[in-house]
Amino acid sequence: MESATPQVHEPVRFGTHPSRYRHWKLSVEGPLARLVMAVDDQHPMREGYVLKLNSYDLGVDIELADAVQRLRFEHPEVRAVLVSSGTDNCFCAGANIYMLGSSTHAFKVNFCKFTNETRLYLEEASAKSGQTYVAALNGVASGGGYELALACEQIYLQDDGSSAVSFPETPLLAVLPGTGGLTRLVDKRKVRRDLADVFSTLAEGVRGKRAKDWGLVDDVFARSKFDAEVKKRAEALVAAAAPKEGGPAFELAAIEPERREEGGKLVSTYRFVEFVVDPATRAATLVVRAPESAAPQTSAELRAQGNDAWHLRAFRELDDALLDLRFNHPTVGLLLLKTEGDASKVKEHDAALLALGGDWLGREITLNVARVLRRLDLTARSLFATIEPGSCFVGTLFELALAADRSYMLASDEPDGPRLGLTQVNFGSFPMSNGLTRLATRFLARPSHVEALAGERDLLDHDAAMKLGLVTYAPDDIDWEDDVRIATEERASLSPDALTGMEANLRFAGPETMETKIFARLSAWQNWIFQRPNAVGERGALTMYGRPERPEFDWRRT
Amino acid sequence: MESATPQVHEPVRFGTHPSRYRHWKLSVEGPLARLVMAVDDQHPMREGYVLKLNSYDLGVDIELADAVQRLRFEHPEVRAVLVSSGTDNCFCAGANIYMLGSSTHAFKVNFCKFTNETRLYLEEASAKSGQTYVAALNGVASGGGYELALACEQIYLQDDGSSAVSFPETPLLAVLPGTGGLTRLVDKRKVRRDLADVFSTLAEGVRGKRAKDWGLVDDVFARSKFDAEVKKRAEALVAAAAPKEGGPAFELAAIEPERREEGGKLVSTYRFVEFVVDPATRAATLVVRAPESAAPQTSAELRAQGNDAWHLRAFRELDDALLDLRFNHPTVGLLLLKTEGDASKVKEHDAALLALGGDWLGREITLNVARVLRRLDLTARSLFATIEPGSCFVGTLFELALAADRSYMLASDEPDGPRLGLTQVNFGSFPMSNGLTRLATRFLARPSHVEALAGERDLLDHDAAMKLGLVTYAPDDIDWEDDVRIATEERASLSPDALTGMEANLRFAGPETMETKIFARLSAWQNWIFQRPNAVGERGALTMYGRPERPEFDWRRT
Repeated sequence: MESATPQVHEPVRFGTHPSRYRHWKLSVEGPLARLVMAVDDQHPMREGYVLKLNSYDLGVDIELADAVQRLRFEHPEVRAVLVSSGTDNCFCAGANIYMLGSSTHAFKVNFCKFTNETRLYLEEASAKSGQTYVAALNGVASGGGYELALACEQIYLQDDGSSAVSFPETPLLAVLPGTGGLTRLVDKRKVRRDLADVFSTLAEGVRGKRAKDWGLVDDVFARSKFDAEVKKRAEALVAAAAPKEGGPAFELAAIEPERREEGGKLVSTYRFVEFVVDPATRAATLVVRAPESAAPQTSAELRAQGNDAWHLRAFRELDDALLDLRFNHPTVGLLLLKTEGDASKVKEHDAALLALGGDWLGREITLNVARVLRRLDLTARSLFATIEPGSCFVGTLFELALAADRSYMLASDEPDGPRLGLTQVNFGSFPMSNGLTRLATRFLARPSHVEALAGERDLLDHDAAMKLGLVTYAPDDIDWEDDVRIATEERASLSPDALTGMEANLRFAGPETMETKIFARLSAWQNWIFQRPNAVGERGALTMYGRPERPEFDWRRT
Repeated sequence: MESATPQVHEPVRFGTHPSRYRHWKLSVEGPLARLVMAVDDQHPMREGYVLKLNSYDLGVDIELADAVQRLRFEHPEVRAVLVSSGTDNCFCAGANIYMLGSSTHAFKVNFCKFTNETRLYLEEASAKSGQTYVAALNGVASGGGYELALACEQIYLQDDGSSAVSFPETPLLAVLPGTGGLTRLVDKRKVRRDLADVFSTLAEGVRGKRAKDWGLVDDVFARSKFDAEVKKRAEALVAAAAPKEGGPAFELAAIEPERREEGGKLVSTYRFVEFVVDPATRAATLVVRAPESAAPQTSAELRAQGNDAWHLRAFRELDDALLDLRFNHPTVGLLLLKTEGDASKVKEHDAALLALGGDWLGREITLNVARVLRRLDLTARSLFATIEPGSCFVGTLFELALAADRSYMLASDEPDGPRLGLTQVNFGSFPMSNGLTRLATRFLARPSHVEALAGERDLLDHDAAMKLGLVTYAPDDIDWEDDVRIATEERASLSPDALTGMEANLRFAGPETMETKIFARLSAWQNWIFQRPNAVGERGALTMYGRPERPEFDWRRT
């Protein structure tokens, strides 16, 4: 299935702008935005397939993610977003099958993870940013098309004898609706499980009144009334929503690092982030630097900083680096997390972020940091934090150490020895996918310890940090180099697959949410199926799709 | 990895008796039972490997499951169960690697599922039957050995410089501690995630005081004091436990069907269950018959019925048939669930079971029915219930229809048309793995509907059943045969893997528990890894184990 020599592709880049969208049309009329999917089938992200029937690939989804993000920052006045299709009779046919069939296992899995994250971001915009997404299915929504609709809070289907919702993955392709589909069906829309079972095996899907009766859509309208009725619902959402909050928006600046090669290493330098990939050791290093400028004290100052606001800029850069790592450096198994700079500046900016949390921009910046941190949690690479002199693992930046699988802190009694520290943001600003803070997840056995830590406002040296359970190891400077080197070398020598599975199980203790269900249960099963010969083998259903012969199955159930 | 021609093995049988145990010694002294693991390494279940170092295969675990079950029914006076090893310096080395390395994917997965169920049953005995399991690790407990300990409520480790707990799966075998290990580490024992990360990559494991400090064990004792100290803890559990409840126990009878071949079908006839496998259509049928005799009205009558008590006998038979299906009929993808007999008798027995729930035997019978129903939920085969004239899907037996992926009820207005019905047992006696009743899971969107159903005590015809959402389809007698035939044929034509993944996602809506986490998140990842070349390929770690060469890995992370 996977060729021994990895295919050489152009690196995937995630920055884009509405003026460069090929596949989506974003328009805003006051509080109502419209996202129209009109996939340019002749412009797939990679050669070898055509994006027929509004099917999507990563390039299409990068634009959607960009649009969802821009709506939050650039159009805070928007209260409802109508998602529809510009292609008659077809809303969206889901992920392109030929793209999936010609992709490596690792790409398929990372593609699905990114699209899953985008759909969760869209749901978060509905829940936390007051921008409620509404799907207007003016045609067939199949597979990933219906999954996109499921990520919207309301779904309306045109009742015209042909528009339908469907999950043809299992009956036609021998895979799952793995972009949240099965989970949202029974856990978000709470469709009765036997009806969900029938629906998920019915290639042609369900239309009209039955789709409404089964809870698959919220309502159906005749073609002649469809646009008006859907608009009425969106306007009702707008009317019921809180009014536009104060302050003008600004356009999100492009995030583009300077890239160079240096002694066999690939270095990407952003303003606050440096990302270094070392192919020889299969390890990468991410350094996040503290702010140098003063924190904004008022909403006006925050707006004036705009793109330069440290929490916004630094975490947009981190996000870009994480996606670069996931898609363009597949053999890098270990990410070393470091910080650099003045801890007091991080504290100052954290305090400002909290103080400005009532401002829509402050809120959006906070939510974005939380999303990037969750993207880090969900990155299938080992994460080690190293806490050294000159570092500033404090508050927001201490979340990096909490997200790490392990942390190493230099035990130094010198005045310039490393310190770490908590700020109020560690106690609720950046929830994990499981709904808990990273501190609460870390100390699941000791909730009272988390409460005690809330009073801990001093910078902590290695002794205090070890005693409070905030770091894993604190070797002294005699052992430091060897300990860290041996740990990283050992980690890099282990099976990448076993580590992916191990980390996915250890990182998310505690409660499960729809989000953790999607990434654990659903994605893990989909990843399994993405390897089974019945799907991807020479005669598997994904391979045979579009050919005249039928797939051949090994009938043994597992 | 998997040979095209399936290996022919003797069918696996699950009935055993302490007098025939080869690998475990069960002894009972008043309220304290001892389970000593002393694996006979020359008697593996199948040829080709030696069970060194108290490693286990399915044969070893069948005995453990039998012992746990017998303790509940045959020794209700037992209040604590000490699990230790009869082999010096070695508690248990986990699942046998050569057995895993030489097994098919489907066998590995089903083996892990059975061992997972056994460990959950042992935990349920601690939680619900007042028989608390204590692990006395008088030697190294590695991999599945430590996972067995984790299923106990208390873990004590001998402090002798060599006894240790360890998870060498990831560093040595490139797989996961998949028998609940990773989940119990962070979710049951709530070990800090960074310490869990270190522990899970440390092949040699953790000994002595550090094991206690990290929360991996509850205490450590020097070798000279170990037995006495552990016994003291077990006796404290006994002293704190509720006193022995009334009534003598009885010995569980063997469950052995009459097996015959009939027109190409394999028929197993038990007293209340008939199990028919049709290899030609890859479908099987399970018929469960209602009781004919009167329900017990008193604890004394229940005891007098003993093995013949309908709820006990019928569900032990069903359990045996389900295990037969899982292990001996891998290509059967669809199980049709049917019932037969007098609905009023089921109601009568359900009422008796509820009335006798305060009796330890009534409680154990109820818990066992619940376990068997969960085994059904977790069986990776499509489940369709067909509700026909002469059937009795009522109360306990209606749970079979609720466990099914779909149900078909004949729409007949004749007086002998099928009826179904609810009894009080449907509202709490038999929780699913997610902690909810099957009704609550079915109507996750409508909790008030479940409350309304609680008042519904009449037998319901097809009209009422459809209106109340209790069945999926109700075709009339003109359509019945075609509808059911087409549905079963279609189901049998779909990819077995996609169906396994789909059903695992649709069956367990709602909250997640440690149990669902183990079967979804952990097992799904383990199943994925069990297919990866890095584990099971020609140069994979599981394949290369015990050879002088090192495994070779594809370093791409997924």
